Amino acid sequence: MSQQEKEVVKGVVEWRINVVDDHDNYSSSSLLLLPSMVVACVWGAMVGFSMKVCKFVKKAWKMGLDDPRKFIHGLKVGVALSAVSLFYYMKPLYNGVGGNSMWAVMTVVVVFEHTAGATICKVINRICGTSLAGFLAIGVHWLASRAGEQWGPLIAGVSLFLLASAATFSRFIPIIKARFDYGCMVFILTFCLVSVSGYRVDKLMDLAQQRVSTVIIGTCLCIIVNMTVCPIWAGQELHLLVTNNLDKLANSLQGSVDQYFNNNQQEGVSDEDCRKKLIGYKCVLSSKATEETMANLARWEPAHGRFNFRHPWKQYVKIGASMRTYASCLDALIACINSHDQASDLIKKKLSSISVKLGSKSADVIREVTTTMRNMRKSSKVDMLVIEMNNAAQELRDLLNNSHSNNLLVIPQKPPTTEDDHQEVGPVVESNNMMMIPVMEIIQVVTVASLLIETVSRVEDIVKTVDELSRLAKFKEPKCVKAKQPSNNIIVDNKIYPTQQQNHHDDHHQEAAIDDNDNNNNNNKTLQMV
Amino acid sequence: MSQQEKEVVKGVVEWRINVVDDHDNYSSSSLLLLPSMVVACVWGAMVGFSMKVCKFVKKAWKMGLDDPRKFIHGLKVGVALSAVSLFYYMKPLYNGVGGNSMWAVMTVVVVFEHTAGATICKVINRICGTSLAGFLAIGVHWLASRAGEQWGPLIAGVSLFLLASAATFSRFIPIIKARFDYGCMVFILTFCLVSVSGYRVDKLMDLAQQRVSTVIIGTCLCIIVNMTVCPIWAGQELHLLVTNNLDKLANSLQGSVDQYFNNNQQEGVSDEDCRKKLIGYKCVLSSKATEETMANLARWEPAHGRFNFRHPWKQYVKIGASMRTYASCLDALIACINSHDQASDLIKKKLSSISVKLGSKSADVIREVTTTMRNMRKSSKVDMLVIEMNNAAQELRDLLNNSHSNNLLVIPQKPPTTEDDHQEVGPVVESNNMMMIPVMEIIQVVTVASLLIETVSRVEDIVKTVDELSRLAKFKEPKCVKAKQPSNNIIVDNKIYPTQQQNHHDDHHQEAAIDDNDNNNNNNKTLQMV
Repeated sequence: MSQQEKEVVKGVVEWRINVVDDHDNYSSSSLLLLPSMVVACVWGAMVGFSMKVCKFVKKAWKMGLDDPRKFIHGLKVGVALSAVSLFYYMKPLYNGVGGNSMWAVMTVVVVFEHTAGATICKVINRICGTSLAGFLAIGVHWLASRAGEQWGPLIAGVSLFLLASAATFSRFIPIIKARFDYGCMVFILTFCLVSVSGYRVDKLMDLAQQRVSTVIIGTCLCIIVNMTVCPIWAGQELHLLVTNNLDKLANSLQGSVDQYFNNNQQEGVSDEDCRKKLIGYKCVLSSKATEETMANLARWEPAHGRFNFRHPWKQYVKIGASMRTYASCLDALIACINSHDQASDLIKKKLSSISVKLGSKSADVIREVTTTMRNMRKSSKVDMLVIEMNNAAQELRDLLNNSHSNNLLVIPQKPPTTEDDHQEVGPVVESNNMMMIPVMEIIQVVTVASLLIETVSRVEDIVKTVDELSRLAKFKEPKCVKAKQPSNNIIVDNKIYPTQQQNHHDDHHQEAAIDDNDNNNNNNKTLQMV
Repeated sequence: MSQQEKEVVKGVVEWRINVVDDHDNYSSSSLLLLPSMVVACVWGAMVGFSMKVCKFVKKAWKMGLDDPRKFIHGLKVGVALSAVSLFYYMKPLYNGVGGNSMWAVMTVVVVFEHTAGATICKVINRICGTSLAGFLAIGVHWLASRAGEQWGPLIAGVSLFLLASAATFSRFIPIIKARFDYGCMVFILTFCLVSVSGYRVDKLMDLAQQRVSTVIIGTCLCIIVNMTVCPIWAGQELHLLVTNNLDKLANSLQGSVDQYFNNNQQEGVSDEDCRKKLIGYKCVLSSKATEETMANLARWEPAHGRFNFRHPWKQYVKIGASMRTYASCLDALIACINSHDQASDLIKKKLSSISVKLGSKSADVIREVTTTMRNMRKSSKVDMLVIEMNNAAQELRDLLNNSHSNNLLVIPQKPPTTEDDHQEVGPVVESNNMMMIPVMEIIQVVTVASLLIETVSRVEDIVKTVDELSRLAKFKEPKCVKAKQPSNNIIVDNKIYPTQQQNHHDDHHQEAAIDDNDNNNNNNKTLQMV
């Protein structure tokens, strides 16, 4: 082995020793580290988990603080369950209903719901389903016991199969699904229990009677606790939901129109508040399921507050539907406002005042309707406000209709003298002796105006449905207020046609163009912003 | 008494006698009639009732025939219940689980749901809730039994109250409400039953073990029957619902645009069919709750058909949301089409071809996306179609933008020579040497065009969400198809800008106005309909 080879071998050995040493060091150190690493891992996981739990609890707590009735509902269930479990703890009560007091506990757990309507609905469903199924099962049992050992189980089995299938199928039928879904389930349950138990239990009548009595105890307790301690009425909730949604619609409409045409923000209102107000209408678009459920529950509730037993809850669903068609139009309007195509400031300014007026008139109508619902008192003003709204819509229509005679699309050719004319007006095309705004520059504002006019008929739909409600629910008559019917308007079919419209001719418009400060003259209203 | 008085008295007496006679006759005849009247009444009521029942049954039967899976579900429940009741009828099975086999029956009734996802969700909730509550209750029972006679019931009662309250409150927390609502209820139920029973039942462990084993028997049976006999998967239903809704959107859009601009109806299609097709989009507006529920259920389902276990069901909710914003825009569009303001036929004709093109391109994109989802295979064409749609939108925008240079609002002044010019064009206003259409006459068509352009960005949203789905769900790669990318377009940010747009100037438009048959020239496309 040459010197060179020796050095190579030595190097390899050294390297090996180093590697082995390193490995040993690593192993021994990792053996030392292992327990502490595991502890650290477990500790980390625990801290992470407890942090998550903390966050979750904090969130839940905040939710409870936002609506303390949720806390109260939890406590109510606790009270009802503690009360019903007394039947087990107290000897005299226990002797009364026997070991079947378990059914009472189960009834409370299953039947106790958030709103009074839901609880009553479940109670009635449970009692009816249990009784009906109990009678049927006893009948089948009697029949089976007469049929002898061989045919008895067969009769019981076949009847069980057929009734369970039919009852399950019936749960798909819309009217049963909406009102008696739970009853069907209880029917199947009780029928199975009684008919199956009947095969082994001798004292079937005792069993049935105990089940019925425990169910009655449980349901009574539920109703008492639910309806005496801070009751939550589905009807009242529905009423609140609908009126609040109406308010949101009015705010969204007026806010978006104001923002678009004036580009101004209310003082002292933050951007976030403003945005929240504007997108309030979105709640309306997704409230269909809630409204229908609540209306279905409210019909079970007795008279409460200002609502009678047979308050027309179904009408609220109709109001909700008309609100949704309105909100969907508003959605398109707001989308159009937020779209990229920007309108020329000039034409926007020309349409501004009348559009803002129409927006605020529409909002006024909705707010008046909201007040009508809130106070449950017919409004003396709403017809007047609808007329004013239609008037404003007609003015906007007229302005667009007579776009040429009032030079809507034309920019004055004279060199700009006032400050207003300094504004950007986008590219204009000179056609002969007129400067005209291209269609692309008016498309946004015309769409907004057109959708605004479209909303008017939808507001009228809302007014109609609320009017129907006030008739059905017999709202109080309005307080006597002198009607301020304008004398110079012809009202046909709830729409207003200014008498001056009859003698529309260009002279008027030209006059108006000269004297556009004369706000008192209705005739000139259509031209005020030219 | 004078003669006169006598006659009066006689008259009164006669009258009285007559009245009494009449009354007697009436009484005797009514006494004779009474039974037959009662019979008739009862008979009438019975016939009426049975007619109503018949009608109800017929309706239900029709509903079942429309979707036979509802019948099948009923039969499945019948089979499962018959199977579980065998535990009662057969001695060896009965001896295994004892009298508590009632719990198995109850489990089947409560847990068996229409879709596999709902059943699995309830099964998992039931098992978890029962086990957790069982352990806790046994722990509390052990603690209470150690605390002695005096403090025992107090500990049991307080823990019952606190846990029931907390669990009830937790059902309001959105994430728990969506996934573990039933589990919470079962938790409360089991805890109450075990902790209350623990006070009297000596063999608590046996009770708990029997309850758990019967619950497991019931749940296993449910899962087996539900998932082997014609299973209905919530996921598949959701997939179908969303793809069908997409189809409806495409049909509604194209149908309404075609109808508005062409006023033509497809041959061989009845009015009713056409109307149904047009209002198909309304389903989309109200499908939010269904989609969310189904997506929540689908996440519990194992792999089935073409869907993996962790298929991104949440993405379907997002697709649904983007479809709803689209549908709400479509709603405004269709409302605008149905509004009273009618557009001038002339301008309608001018915009017709390009608007119909845009409508059909948008519909094509939606249909392609639907095909992508249906086949679960990425599309090679969709990018191209989106580009074409944007192209069409840009053309419409250009047409509106250059309204003056291409005389969009102007009616030729020369005496009409071709047939087209004979049409009604509504009132026109002469301004200097041009005949112009008033704004009111263009408002509807401009709004329709503007909303059509607005829908484009919403269609893009749908494409984006579906694209995200295809990425998340790892759709198959598209079959190799040669991309037909047009070479003369610049694509920036998924939008197309025709190269010719760079050198837009009026000369081109004037050329085009002269030679408007040259369809091959992209440059002239914007002017084809002038």
